[in-house]
Amino acid sequence: MAEQGKVIFHGMWASPFARGVKLALNLKGISYEYVEEDLVNKSDLLLKYNPVHKKVPVLVHNGKAIAESLVILEYIDETWKDGPKLLPSDPYKRAQARFWSKFIHEQLFEITFLIFKTDGEVQQKAIDGMHEKLNTLENGMKTLLVQGNLGFENDVGILDAIFYSLFGGYKAHEEVLGIKFIVAEKFPVLFSWLMAIVELDVVKKQAPPHQQLVQGLQRYRNSGLKSSAST
Amino acid sequence: MAEQGKVIFHGMWASPFARGVKLALNLKGISYEYVEEDLVNKSDLLLKYNPVHKKVPVLVHNGKAIAESLVILEYIDETWKDGPKLLPSDPYKRAQARFWSKFIHEQLFEITFLIFKTDGEVQQKAIDGMHEKLNTLENGMKTLLVQGNLGFENDVGILDAIFYSLFGGYKAHEEVLGIKFIVAEKFPVLFSWLMAIVELDVVKKQAPPHQQLVQGLQRYRNSGLKSSAST
Repeated sequence: MAEQGKVIFHGMWASPFARGVKLALNLKGISYEYVEEDLVNKSDLLLKYNPVHKKVPVLVHNGKAIAESLVILEYIDETWKDGPKLLPSDPYKRAQARFWSKFIHEQLFEITFLIFKTDGEVQQKAIDGMHEKLNTLENGMKTLLVQGNLGFENDVGILDAIFYSLFGGYKAHEEVLGIKFIVAEKFPVLFSWLMAIVELDVVKKQAPPHQQLVQGLQRYRNSGLKSSAST
Repeated sequence: MAEQGKVIFHGMWASPFARGVKLALNLKGISYEYVEEDLVNKSDLLLKYNPVHKKVPVLVHNGKAIAESLVILEYIDETWKDGPKLLPSDPYKRAQARFWSKFIHEQLFEITFLIFKTDGEVQQKAIDGMHEKLNTLENGMKTLLVQGNLGFENDVGILDAIFYSLFGGYKAHEEVLGIKFIVAEKFPVLFSWLMAIVELDVVKKQAPPHQQLVQGLQRYRNSGLKSSAST
Protein backbone atom coordinates (compact mmCIF):
# COMPACT_ATOMS: atom_id res chain seq x y z
CA MET A 1 0.00 0.00 0.00
CA ALA A 2 1.17 3.53 -0.79
CA GLU A 3 2.42 5.81 2.01
CA GLN A 4 -0.73 6.74 3.86
CA GLY A 5 0.50 9.70 5.89
CA LYS A 6 -0.79 10.66 9.31
CA VAL A 7 -4.53 10.22 9.68
CA ILE A 8 -6.52 11.48 12.65
CA PHE A 9 -10.25 10.81 12.84
CA HIS A 10 -12.45 12.89 15.14
CA GLY A 11 -15.69 11.07 15.87
CA MET A 12 -18.22 10.29 18.56
CA TRP A 13 -18.92 6.63 19.21
CA ALA A 14 -22.71 6.87 18.75
CA SER A 15 -22.68 9.37 15.84
CA PRO A 16 -24.25 7.83 12.75
CA PHE A 17 -22.24 10.14 10.49
CA ALA A 18 -18.96 9.11 12.12
CA ARG A 19 -20.01 5.46 11.72
CA GLY A 20 -20.04 5.75 7.92
CA VAL A 21 -16.63 7.41 7.73
CA LYS A 22 -15.20 4.79 10.09
CA LEU A 23 -16.51 2.07 7.78
CA ALA A 24 -14.84 3.71 4.77
CA LEU A 25 -11.50 3.95 6.62
CA ASN A 26 -11.79 0.31 7.68
CA LEU A 27 -12.80 -0.84 4.18
CA LYS A 28 -9.68 0.84 2.78
CA GLY A 29 -7.52 -0.59 5.58
CA ILE A 30 -6.26 2.83 6.66
CA SER A 31 -4.63 3.13 10.08
CA TYR A 32 -5.72 6.16 12.02
CA GLU A 33 -5.53 7.80 15.39
CA TYR A 34 -9.01 8.14 16.84
CA VAL A 35 -10.15 11.16 18.86
CA GLU A 36 -13.46 10.75 20.69
CA GLU A 37 -15.28 14.09 20.88
CA ASP A 38 -17.63 15.18 23.64
CA LEU A 39 -20.34 16.97 21.66
CA VAL A 40 -21.65 18.74 24.76
CA ASN A 41 -18.22 20.18 25.42
CA LYS A 42 -16.50 20.43 22.04
CA SER A 43 -12.71 20.39 21.93
CA ASP A 44 -10.70 23.36 20.66
CA LEU A 45 -9.35 21.09 17.95
CA LEU A 46 -12.84 20.23 16.66
CA LEU A 47 -13.77 23.94 16.55
CA LYS A 48 -10.50 24.70 14.76
CA TYR A 49 -10.87 21.89 12.23
CA ASN A 50 -14.58 22.36 11.50
CA PRO A 51 -15.33 26.01 12.34
CA VAL A 52 -18.29 26.13 9.96
CA HIS A 53 -20.38 23.23 11.25
CA LYS A 54 -18.57 22.36 14.53
CA LYS A 55 -19.56 18.72 14.07
CA VAL A 56 -18.02 15.28 13.77
CA PRO A 57 -16.82 13.54 11.69
CA VAL A 58 -13.63 15.36 10.83
CA LEU A 59 -10.69 13.70 9.11
CA VAL A 60 -7.26 15.27 9.49
CA HIS A 61 -4.75 14.03 6.95
CA ASN A 62 -1.17 15.28 7.29
CA GLY A 63 -2.50 18.30 9.18
CA LYS A 64 -5.22 19.16 6.66
CA ALA A 65 -8.80 18.93 7.94
CA ILE A 66 -11.77 17.70 5.93
CA ALA A 67 -15.34 17.92 7.21
CA GLU A 68 -18.78 16.69 6.06
CA SER A 69 -19.40 12.95 5.65
CA LEU A 70 -19.93 12.88 1.89
CA VAL A 71 -16.92 15.11 1.25
CA ILE A 72 -14.76 12.94 3.52
CA LEU A 73 -15.92 9.73 1.83
CA GLU A 74 -14.98 11.07 -1.60
CA TYR A 75 -11.64 12.28 -0.20
CA ILE A 76 -10.87 8.84 1.20
CA ASP A 77 -11.66 7.21 -2.13
CA GLU A 78 -9.57 9.66 -4.13
CA THR A 79 -6.60 9.70 -1.76
CA TRP A 80 -6.14 6.00 -1.06
CA LYS A 81 -6.60 4.38 -4.42
CA ASP A 82 -5.35 1.01 -3.21
CA GLY A 83 -7.98 -1.17 -1.59
CA PRO A 84 -11.61 -1.38 -2.65
CA LYS A 85 -13.12 1.44 -4.69
CA LEU A 86 -15.85 3.33 -2.85
CA LEU A 87 -17.42 4.67 -6.04
CA PRO A 88 -17.87 2.75 -9.32
CA SER A 89 -15.61 3.82 -12.17
CA ASP A 90 -18.43 4.53 -14.65
CA PRO A 91 -19.51 8.23 -14.42
CA TYR A 92 -23.22 7.41 -14.68
CA LYS A 93 -23.02 4.82 -11.90
CA ARG A 94 -21.04 7.31 -9.82
CA ALA A 95 -23.79 9.87 -10.39
CA GLN A 96 -26.41 7.37 -9.21
CA ALA A 97 -24.42 6.55 -6.07
CA ARG A 98 -23.96 10.27 -5.35
CA PHE A 99 -27.63 11.05 -6.01
CA TRP A 100 -28.89 8.42 -3.57
CA SER A 101 -26.21 9.13 -0.96
CA LYS A 102 -27.33 12.75 -1.03
CA PHE A 103 -30.96 11.67 -0.81
CA ILE A 104 -30.34 9.58 2.31
CA HIS A 105 -28.12 12.26 3.81
CA GLU A 106 -30.50 15.16 3.22
CA GLN A 107 -33.86 13.50 3.63
CA LEU A 108 -33.60 10.62 6.08
CA PHE A 109 -31.31 11.67 8.93
CA GLU A 110 -33.19 14.68 10.28
CA ILE A 111 -36.50 12.85 10.25
CA THR A 112 -34.94 9.91 12.11
CA PHE A 113 -33.58 12.28 14.77
CA LEU A 114 -37.06 13.81 15.03
CA ILE A 115 -38.66 10.40 15.58
CA PHE A 116 -36.23 9.83 18.44
CA LYS A 117 -36.91 13.17 20.06
CA THR A 118 -40.72 13.21 19.92
CA ASP A 119 -43.84 11.37 20.97
CA GLY A 120 -47.51 11.16 20.08
CA GLU A 121 -48.85 12.99 17.06
CA VAL A 122 -45.63 14.77 16.10
CA GLN A 123 -43.75 11.48 16.16
CA GLN A 124 -46.47 9.71 14.17
CA LYS A 125 -46.32 12.37 11.47
CA ALA A 126 -42.54 11.96 11.29
CA ILE A 127 -42.91 8.17 11.07
CA ASP A 128 -45.37 8.52 8.19
CA GLY A 129 -42.96 10.89 6.43
CA MET A 130 -40.12 8.43 7.01
CA HIS A 131 -42.13 5.59 5.43
CA GLU A 132 -42.80 7.70 2.37
CA LYS A 133 -39.11 8.47 1.96
CA LEU A 134 -38.15 4.84 2.54
CA ASN A 135 -40.60 3.91 -0.19
CA THR A 136 -38.81 6.28 -2.57
CA LEU A 137 -35.47 4.81 -1.53
CA GLU A 138 -36.75 1.23 -1.95
CA ASN A 139 -37.84 2.01 -5.52
CA GLY A 140 -34.53 3.70 -6.29
CA MET A 141 -32.50 0.82 -4.88
CA LYS A 142 -34.63 -1.70 -6.78
CA THR A 143 -33.64 0.05 -10.00
CA LEU A 144 -29.97 -0.01 -9.02
CA LEU A 145 -30.25 -3.68 -8.04
CA VAL A 146 -31.78 -4.63 -11.41
CA GLN A 147 -28.90 -2.78 -13.08
CA GLY A 148 -26.43 -4.80 -10.97
CA ASN A 149 -25.30 -1.52 -9.45
CA LEU A 150 -26.19 -1.80 -5.78
CA GLY A 151 -23.22 -2.14 -3.42
CA PHE A 152 -23.89 -5.49 -1.83
CA GLU A 153 -23.98 -7.11 -5.22
CA ASN A 154 -20.56 -5.67 -6.04
CA ASP A 155 -18.14 -3.64 -3.96
CA VAL A 156 -19.25 -1.94 -0.80
CA GLY A 157 -18.90 1.81 -1.23
CA ILE A 158 -20.04 5.31 -0.38
CA LEU A 159 -23.75 4.61 -0.83
CA ASP A 160 -23.54 1.56 1.44
CA ALA A 161 -21.56 3.56 4.00
CA ILE A 162 -24.25 6.27 4.11
CA PHE A 163 -27.06 3.72 4.38
CA TYR A 164 -25.12 1.95 7.11
CA SER A 165 -24.56 5.31 8.86
CA LEU A 166 -28.28 5.66 9.21
CA PHE A 167 -29.40 2.11 9.90
CA GLY A 168 -26.31 0.36 11.26
CA GLY A 169 -27.85 0.67 14.72
CA TYR A 170 -31.26 -0.62 13.60
CA LYS A 171 -31.53 -3.19 16.41
CA ALA A 172 -30.98 -0.49 19.02
CA HIS A 173 -33.48 1.77 17.19
CA GLU A 174 -36.05 -1.02 17.46
CA GLU A 175 -35.41 -1.58 21.13
CA VAL A 176 -35.60 2.11 22.07
CA LEU A 177 -38.50 3.13 19.84
CA GLY A 178 -40.41 -0.12 19.53
CA ILE A 179 -40.55 0.50 15.77
CA LYS A 180 -39.10 -1.58 12.94
CA PHE A 181 -38.31 0.68 9.97
CA ILE A 182 -36.73 -1.71 7.50
CA VAL A 183 -39.32 -4.46 7.37
CA ALA A 184 -38.72 -7.24 4.84
CA GLU A 185 -42.34 -7.40 3.66
CA LYS A 186 -42.52 -3.69 3.01
CA PHE A 187 -39.00 -2.88 1.86
CA PRO A 188 -37.50 -6.15 0.60
CA VAL A 189 -34.57 -4.54 -1.24
CA LEU A 190 -33.61 -2.26 1.67
CA PHE A 191 -33.96 -5.18 4.07
CA SER A 192 -31.67 -7.51 2.09
CA TRP A 193 -29.22 -4.68 1.56
CA LEU A 194 -29.04 -3.83 5.27
CA MET A 195 -28.68 -7.49 6.25
CA ALA A 196 -25.85 -7.93 3.75
CA ILE A 197 -24.02 -4.88 5.13
CA VAL A 198 -24.33 -5.71 8.82
CA GLU A 199 -23.09 -9.24 8.14
CA LEU A 200 -19.79 -8.01 6.70
CA ASP A 201 -16.81 -8.83 8.93
CA VAL A 202 -15.52 -5.27 8.72
CA VAL A 203 -18.88 -4.00 9.97
CA LYS A 204 -19.21 -6.55 12.77
CA LYS A 205 -15.76 -5.58 14.02
CA GLN A 206 -16.54 -1.88 14.28
CA ALA A 207 -20.09 -1.98 15.68
CA PRO A 208 -20.43 -0.72 19.27
CA PRO A 209 -21.93 -3.18 21.80
CA HIS A 210 -25.72 -3.34 21.43
CA GLN A 211 -26.55 -2.44 25.06
CA GLN A 212 -24.22 0.56 25.01
CA LEU A 213 -25.95 1.89 21.88
CA VAL A 214 -29.40 1.26 23.38
CA GLN A 215 -28.44 3.25 26.48
CA GLY A 216 -26.91 6.06 24.40
CA LEU A 217 -30.00 6.33 22.18
CA GLN A 218 -32.28 6.19 25.21
CA ARG A 219 -30.40 9.13 26.76
CA TYR A 220 -30.67 11.01 23.44
CA ARG A 221 -34.41 10.30 23.32
CA ASN A 222 -35.01 11.34 26.93
CA SER A 223 -33.16 14.64 26.57
CA GLY A 224 -35.02 15.36 23.31
CA LEU A 225 -38.43 14.61 24.86
CA LYS A 226 -37.55 16.77 27.86
CA SER A 227 -36.52 19.77 25.77
CA SER A 228 -39.57 19.51 23.47
CA ALA A 229 -41.84 19.31 26.53
CA SER A 230 -40.35 22.51 27.93
CA THR A 231 -40.75 24.68 24.82
CA MET B 1 -12.83 16.41 -28.65
CA ALA B 2 -14.02 12.89 -27.86
CA GLU B 3 -17.42 11.71 -29.07
CA GLN B 4 -19.83 13.55 -26.82
CA GLY B 5 -23.01 11.56 -27.40
CA LYS B 6 -26.50 12.99 -27.31
CA VAL B 7 -27.00 15.55 -24.57
CA ILE B 8 -30.40 16.99 -23.61
CA PHE B 9 -30.61 19.62 -20.89
CA HIS B 10 -33.93 20.29 -19.15
CA GLY B 11 -33.90 23.71 -17.53
CA MET B 12 -35.96 26.80 -16.85
CA TRP B 13 -34.53 30.09 -18.03
CA ALA B 14 -34.72 31.86 -14.64
CA SER B 15 -33.74 28.83 -12.49
CA PRO B 16 -30.52 29.55 -10.59
CA PHE B 17 -29.71 25.85 -10.39
CA ALA B 18 -30.10 25.43 -14.15
CA ARG B 19 -27.84 28.48 -14.65
CA GLY B 20 -24.89 26.72 -12.98
CA VAL B 21 -25.27 23.54 -15.03
CA LYS B 22 -25.57 25.60 -18.22
CA LEU B 23 -22.30 27.35 -17.34
CA ALA B 24 -20.56 24.00 -16.84
CA LEU B 25 -21.82 22.72 -20.21
CA ASN B 26 -20.68 25.92 -21.89
CA LEU B 27 -17.28 25.89 -20.16
CA LYS B 28 -16.72 22.36 -21.47
CA GLY B 29 -17.97 23.33 -24.93
CA ILE B 30 -20.60 20.60 -24.97
CA SER B 31 -23.38 20.89 -27.55
CA TYR B 32 -26.80 20.10 -26.18
CA GLU B 33 -30.46 20.19 -27.01
CA TYR B 34 -32.25 22.49 -24.59
CA VAL B 35 -35.74 21.78 -23.22
CA GLU B 36 -37.40 24.69 -21.41
CA GLU B 37 -39.63 23.37 -18.61
CA ASP B 38 -42.78 25.01 -17.33
CA LEU B 39 -42.48 24.42 -13.59
CA VAL B 40 -46.17 25.15 -13.00
CA ASN B 41 -47.10 22.47 -15.49
CA LYS B 42 -44.27 19.96 -15.45
CA SER B 43 -43.70 17.82 -18.53
CA ASP B 44 -44.10 14.06 -18.46
CA LEU B 45 -40.44 13.82 -19.42
CA LEU B 46 -39.31 15.84 -16.40
CA LEU B 47 -41.41 13.65 -14.09
CA LYS B 48 -39.98 10.55 -15.74
CA TYR B 49 -36.37 11.74 -15.58
CA ASN B 50 -36.47 13.16 -12.06
CA PRO B 51 -39.29 11.30 -10.29
CA VAL B 52 -37.76 11.90 -6.85
CA HIS B 53 -37.44 15.69 -6.84
CA LYS B 54 -39.43 16.63 -9.98
CA LYS B 55 -37.13 19.62 -10.51
CA VAL B 56 -34.79 21.12 -13.05
CA PRO B 57 -31.98 20.86 -13.91
CA VAL B 58 -31.91 17.40 -15.45
CA LEU B 59 -29.21 16.26 -17.86
CA VAL B 60 -29.99 13.36 -20.18
CA HIS B 61 -26.91 11.81 -21.75
CA ASN B 62 -27.49 9.07 -24.30
CA GLY B 63 -30.88 8.39 -22.72
CA LYS B 64 -29.61 8.27 -19.13
CA ALA B 65 -30.95 10.96 -16.80
CA ILE B 66 -28.96 12.69 -14.07
CA ALA B 67 -30.57 15.04 -11.55
CA GLU B 68 -29.35 17.38 -8.79
CA SER B 69 -26.99 20.26 -9.66
CA LEU B 70 -23.92 19.06 -7.75
CA VAL B 71 -24.30 15.51 -9.05
CA ILE B 72 -24.69 16.79 -12.62
CA LEU B 73 -21.64 19.06 -12.32
CA GLU B 74 -19.47 16.16 -11.17
CA TYR B 75 -20.88 13.99 -13.96
CA ILE B 76 -20.03 16.63 -16.56
CA ASP B 77 -16.47 16.88 -15.27
CA GLU B 78 -15.95 13.12 -15.18
CA THR B 79 -17.57 12.39 -18.53
CA TRP B 80 -16.03 15.09 -20.71
CA LYS B 81 -12.41 15.13 -19.69
CA ASP B 82 -11.39 17.36 -22.58
CA GLY B 83 -11.80 21.06 -21.94
CA PRO B 84 -11.25 22.81 -18.63
CA LYS B 85 -11.32 20.77 -15.43
CA LEU B 86 -14.21 21.71 -13.14
CA LEU B 87 -12.52 20.31 -10.04
CA PRO B 88 -8.82 20.60 -9.14
CA SER B 89 -6.79 17.38 -9.43
CA ASP B 90 -5.49 17.43 -5.84
CA PRO B 91 -7.87 15.47 -3.53
CA TYR B 92 -7.67 18.03 -0.71
CA LYS B 93 -8.46 20.92 -3.04
CA ARG B 94 -11.32 18.88 -4.48
CA ALA B 95 -12.61 18.33 -0.94
CA GLN B 96 -12.50 22.09 -0.28
CA ALA B 97 -14.38 22.85 -3.51
CA ARG B 98 -16.99 20.22 -2.63
CA PHE B 99 -17.32 21.42 0.96
CA TRP B 100 -18.00 25.01 -0.06
CA SER B 101 -20.22 24.07 -3.00
CA LYS B 102 -22.31 22.06 -0.57
CA PHE B 103 -22.33 24.98 1.88
CA ILE B 104 -23.65 27.41 -0.73
CA HIS B 105 -26.12 24.85 -2.04
CA GLU B 106 -27.53 23.84 1.33
CA GLN B 107 -27.34 27.08 3.26
CA LEU B 108 -27.71 30.02 0.88
CA PHE B 109 -30.36 29.15 -1.70
CA GLU B 110 -33.38 28.60 0.54
CA ILE B 111 -32.72 31.75 2.51
CA THR B 112 -32.42 33.77 -0.71
CA PHE B 113 -35.75 32.39 -1.91
CA LEU B 114 -37.24 33.34 1.46
CA ILE B 115 -35.97 36.92 1.16
CA PHE B 116 -37.72 37.14 -2.21
CA LYS B 117 -40.99 35.77 -0.92
CA THR B 118 -41.35 37.81 2.28
CA ASP B 119 -41.54 41.32 3.65
CA GLY B 120 -41.13 43.16 6.94
CA GLU B 121 -39.85 41.34 9.99
CA VAL B 122 -39.68 37.86 8.45
CA GLN B 123 -37.66 39.23 5.55
CA GLN B 124 -35.35 41.19 7.85
CA LYS B 125 -34.62 38.07 9.88
CA ALA B 126 -33.78 36.18 6.69
CA ILE B 127 -31.53 39.04 5.52
CA ASP B 128 -29.66 38.95 8.84
CA GLY B 129 -29.25 35.19 8.52
CA MET B 130 -28.01 35.63 4.95
CA HIS B 131 -25.36 38.13 6.06
CA GLU B 132 -24.11 35.73 8.69
CA LYS B 133 -23.78 32.96 6.15
CA LEU B 134 -22.11 35.27 3.65
CA ASN B 135 -19.64 36.18 6.35
CA THR B 136 -18.80 32.51 6.81
CA LEU B 137 -18.43 32.13 3.05
CA GLU B 138 -16.23 35.25 2.81
CA ASN B 139 -13.87 33.83 5.42
CA GLY B 140 -13.79 30.46 3.72
CA MET B 141 -13.11 31.97 0.31
CA LYS B 142 -10.39 34.19 1.77
CA THR B 143 -8.61 31.06 2.97
CA LEU B 144 -8.96 29.46 -0.46
CA LEU B 145 -7.73 32.64 -2.13
CA VAL B 146 -4.63 32.81 0.08
CA GLN B 147 -3.94 29.17 -0.86
CA GLY B 148 -4.26 30.12 -4.55
CA ASN B 149 -7.20 27.78 -4.73
CA LEU B 150 -10.17 29.97 -5.60
CA GLY B 151 -11.56 29.52 -9.11
CA PHE B 152 -11.06 32.96 -10.57
CA GLU B 153 -7.36 32.76 -9.82
CA ASN B 154 -7.11 29.48 -11.72
CA ASP B 155 -9.67 27.54 -13.69
CA VAL B 156 -13.34 28.23 -13.33
CA GLY B 157 -15.04 25.17 -11.90
CA ILE B 158 -17.84 23.64 -9.87
CA LEU B 159 -17.51 26.03 -6.93
CA ASP B 160 -17.64 29.04 -9.25
CA ALA B 161 -20.63 27.55 -11.07
CA ILE B 162 -22.55 27.14 -7.81
CA PHE B 163 -21.68 30.65 -6.65
CA TYR B 164 -22.71 31.96 -10.06
CA SER B 165 -25.94 29.94 -9.83
CA LEU B 166 -26.88 31.90 -6.76
CA PHE B 167 -25.60 35.37 -7.59
CA GLY B 168 -25.35 35.47 -11.38
CA GLY B 169 -28.54 37.52 -11.38
CA TYR B 170 -27.30 39.91 -8.66
CA LYS B 171 -28.21 43.07 -10.61
CA ALA B 172 -31.79 41.89 -10.99
CA HIS B 173 -31.85 40.90 -7.28
CA GLU B 174 -30.82 44.46 -6.39
CA GLU B 175 -33.44 46.00 -8.63
CA VAL B 176 -36.30 43.85 -7.35
CA LEU B 177 -35.38 43.82 -3.65
CA GLY B 178 -33.53 47.10 -3.28
CA ILE B 179 -30.81 45.18 -1.43
CA LYS B 180 -27.16 44.70 -2.36
CA PHE B 181 -25.90 41.42 -0.90
CA ILE B 182 -22.35 41.24 -2.19
CA VAL B 183 -21.01 44.63 -1.14
CA ALA B 184 -17.30 45.25 -1.76
CA GLU B 185 -16.67 46.90 1.61
CA LYS B 186 -18.25 44.06 3.53
CA PHE B 187 -17.34 41.03 1.44
CA PRO B 188 -14.29 42.03 -0.63
CA VAL B 189 -13.35 38.48 -1.64
CA LEU B 190 -16.89 37.50 -2.65
CA PHE B 191 -17.26 40.79 -4.51
CA SER B 192 -14.06 40.36 -6.58
CA TRP B 193 -14.93 36.75 -7.20
CA LEU B 194 -18.42 37.56 -8.47
CA MET B 195 -17.15 40.39 -10.68
CA ALA B 196 -14.50 38.10 -12.17
CA ILE B 197 -17.14 35.45 -12.97
CA VAL B 198 -19.73 37.75 -14.53
CA GLU B 199 -17.05 39.32 -16.73
CA LEU B 200 -16.18 35.98 -18.35
CA ASP B 201 -17.18 35.82 -22.01
CA VAL B 202 -18.86 32.45 -21.53
CA VAL B 203 -20.99 33.93 -18.74
CA LYS B 204 -21.90 37.10 -20.63
CA LYS B 205 -23.05 34.99 -23.57
CA GLN B 206 -25.41 32.85 -21.52
CA ALA B 207 -26.95 35.48 -19.21
CA PRO B 208 -30.64 36.24 -19.84
CA PRO B 209 -31.52 39.89 -20.62
CA HIS B 210 -31.57 41.97 -17.43
CA GLN B 211 -35.13 43.27 -17.83
CA GLN B 212 -36.49 39.79 -18.48
CA LEU B 213 -34.88 38.53 -15.27
CA VAL B 214 -36.18 41.52 -13.29
CA GLN B 215 -39.71 40.80 -14.50
CA GLY B 216 -39.39 37.08 -13.77
CA LEU B 217 -38.09 37.72 -10.24
CA GLN B 218 -40.78 40.34 -9.64
CA ARG B 219 -43.45 37.80 -10.59
CA TYR B 220 -41.82 35.23 -8.29
CA ARG B 221 -41.75 37.78 -5.45
CA ASN B 222 -45.37 38.85 -5.99
CA SER B 223 -46.69 35.30 -5.98
CA GLY B 224 -44.63 34.51 -2.87
CA LEU B 225 -45.92 37.59 -1.00
CA LYS B 226 -49.47 36.75 -2.04
CA SER B 227 -49.28 33.15 -0.82
CA SER B 228 -47.63 34.11 2.48
CA ALA B 229 -50.30 36.76 3.04
CA SER B 230 -53.06 34.21 2.56
CA THR B 231 -51.76 31.66 5.07
